[in-house]
Amino acid sequence: MTPAQFTAETSGRGEFVRQANRFTQRITADGSSDWPVEPGRYRLVVSLACPWAHRSVIVRRLLGLEDALSLAVVDPIRDARGWRFSLDEGGRDPVLGIEFLSEAYLATDPSFTGRYTVPAIVDVHTGQVATNDYPRITLDLSTQWREFHRDGAPDLYPEPLRAEIDAVIEPIFRNVNNGVYRCGFAASQQAYEEAFHDLFGELDRLSDRLATQRYLVGDTITEADIRLFTTLVRFDAVYHGHFKCNRQKLTEMPVLWAYARDLFQTPGFGDTVDFDHIKRHYYGTHEQLNPSGIVPLGPDESGWHTPHGREALGGSPFGTGTPPPAV
Amino acid sequence: MTPAQFTAETSGRGEFVRQANRFTQRITADGSSDWPVEPGRYRLVVSLACPWAHRSVIVRRLLGLEDALSLAVVDPIRDARGWRFSLDEGGRDPVLGIEFLSEAYLATDPSFTGRYTVPAIVDVHTGQVATNDYPRITLDLSTQWREFHRDGAPDLYPEPLRAEIDAVIEPIFRNVNNGVYRCGFAASQQAYEEAFHDLFGELDRLSDRLATQRYLVGDTITEADIRLFTTLVRFDAVYHGHFKCNRQKLTEMPVLWAYARDLFQTPGFGDTVDFDHIKRHYYGTHEQLNPSGIVPLGPDESGWHTPHGREALGGSPFGTGTPPPAV
Repeated sequence: MTPAQFTAETSGRGEFVRQANRFTQRITADGSSDWPVEPGRYRLVVSLACPWAHRSVIVRRLLGLEDALSLAVVDPIRDARGWRFSLDEGGRDPVLGIEFLSEAYLATDPSFTGRYTVPAIVDVHTGQVATNDYPRITLDLSTQWREFHRDGAPDLYPEPLRAEIDAVIEPIFRNVNNGVYRCGFAASQQAYEEAFHDLFGELDRLSDRLATQRYLVGDTITEADIRLFTTLVRFDAVYHGHFKCNRQKLTEMPVLWAYARDLFQTPGFGDTVDFDHIKRHYYGTHEQLNPSGIVPLGPDESGWHTPHGREALGGSPFGTGTPPPAV
Repeated sequence: MTPAQFTAETSGRGEFVRQANRFTQRITADGSSDWPVEPGRYRLVVSLACPWAHRSVIVRRLLGLEDALSLAVVDPIRDARGWRFSLDEGGRDPVLGIEFLSEAYLATDPSFTGRYTVPAIVDVHTGQVATNDYPRITLDLSTQWREFHRDGAPDLYPEPLRAEIDAVIEPIFRNVNNGVYRCGFAASQQAYEEAFHDLFGELDRLSDRLATQRYLVGDTITEADIRLFTTLVRFDAVYHGHFKCNRQKLTEMPVLWAYARDLFQTPGFGDTVDFDHIKRHYYGTHEQLNPSGIVPLGPDESGWHTPHGREALGGSPFGTGTPPPAV
């Protein structure tokens, strides 16, 4: 049975095939695109539930871009009309003046028929979506918005490490970030099982890599860690049960669990996690997976604050930089 | 949303209220009921997936009643017509000659309209259900069928401990055995949350009790351990994810996990567990909870065979008796 919402994203073999990002223009510092970097001009629209959007929330905070790029948070519950601004007074985003994210998408391309996805960066003047290209958004926040970074901001995508970061994040995307969705939205037993083996095979390789080094690439936090973190932090809360990613819980994979706790306890990571939005979104939105809409009370989240012991591996989260100030 | 299959068993507040057992006559040794104990006369119909039926499979084996009481195993996948004998040649039970368990129920009471449940003990002569009263079935196997027990059979319901056993199993039934179903089949968030707290509150109390004693009552295995075991052994495989019993996995509750492994490794327990039937039944039958019918590959089951260390608490599983021979 193919979940109705994703019929357009299901292969003949029952595999979940994520739609391409529609708006792939970049916001650039040198004016080489239609969208120049400009403080106050754009609004970053996110769901705190969504791992793809969560990346940009972390990066924005680590780099201190809060004043340059404002943030809009949608309601975690999405219905057939897509993400909506019902957390805001009057049910409208106070800057964009819209009720649904779809309004920005359709203002940009009236013929758009795909899913309206977060993160999206919207031009506050025209109400158009500049980009919803999440893999590019965070890299551009690091590289194009540099003029507006805070003092002490880390370099999350340092030149000398880019080739290694790119090589590491590709299988993380395929097998882990998107892999959990390939498990959960599989429409056949075979597609699910392939995704499951891809996911846990990759997690095993990442465990091996992280057994002897504190971060994925180099001695400090990089884009690669952010991308892995946003999936790991949701693992036991939603992917393990709701998406049937249940060979083990994260808490049963000692290296990855310590690695994830280390990041969680680093400013910019745990303080951007909203387990309530995460759980209500997944269990309340995917009716095809959870018809009752009941949201589980578990798992116990207290373990996130326990000592992780990863300092012994060396490295330091911000290198020569500094952590962002407390929220 | 009330799962259709259980509409008749859902309260106005969305609670799952299990139907009463229809056939509550007893099979007795002294002829005080319509159904006298008689070897070869009855057939025990079970699903290996079902925890209520599993009790009787364990007790039959521990007591060595295999020759006196034959066993029929239904297909783990149940459809609208109820349990069926499709694992047997021609899709019929070779002794009873029926395709569906419902045939025995309706041969006994043509007006029966409830769920056709296992375990059921069927008279092979008339094809009628003598009893489907699962709490009584195992006690009567222990007390009424004593003449046909094997040499060295344990006393699972010893006279001097009956009051204590009865007191222990009552909250186990309410909060654990039936509690996981109250979580999974709750039709409202509130009913689910109440069941969840009842379940884990009881598991916490049982953990305390079992921290200092090897078995629930006395120094040997009793009926109480069997009743707790059949739920614990299914906990991570189905209840944790499918029924949202996810404060912790069993593997994350150290005392109960060691206790369950101790029993699992005792003849008569682990050798009567069929994880394949368990997982296919729950995930393949409850369409209202898992519309895709996809069966999770996890959890990793290898931990069941690891040392449990419970011997240090004293006691011995069979007391002055002996374990049943290997399967």
